[in-house]
Amino acid sequence: MVYDVGEKRVNKALKVGRRYLSWVQNSVFEGELSPALYQQLKADMGHLLDKTHDSVIFYTWRTERYSTREILGQERGTGDPFL
Amino acid sequence: MVYDVGEKRVNKALKVGRRYLSWVQNSVFEGELSPALYQQLKADMGHLLDKTHDSVIFYTWRTERYSTREILGQERGTGDPFL
Repeated sequence: MVYDVGEKRVNKALKVGRRYLSWVQNSVFEGELSPALYQQLKADMGHLLDKTHDSVIFYTWRTERYSTREILGQERGTGDPFL
Repeated sequence: MVYDVGEKRVNKALKVGRRYLSWVQNSVFEGELSPALYQQLKADMGHLLDKTHDSVIFYTWRTERYSTREILGQERGTGDPFL
């Protein structure tokens, strides 16, 4: 999940993100979710957004077999952005 | 590709990103690349990074059959972030 939201909503988005996923980078979350939890995450994010201004993209893949994840530089994903 | 780089390097990262991919959101790029271009993108990003501070994550998938992309709010991907 990657989001680009107005300054006033960044903390709320961070809180919702951490409820369901792991923080990996500024405005970027990752995690494994059941379909039901995924729907709930989308609903929670939908409630806090200003839909005329903010943007959230959800990338999902059913299997990791055909995908890779590579990092350059720092692995930030300590699970807590303020550590 | 998602990146979280120091203020001084944001423009450089944006320029490299746009050379290979489409801008879709703040610090988020998408696109289809050959393996060779993907290596080049990683090399170019690698050159501009401060590896002790910055972070870039590349998510790749060989087929879109097992993945989805959903947007809440604004679809920003006009290809030019300053439009």
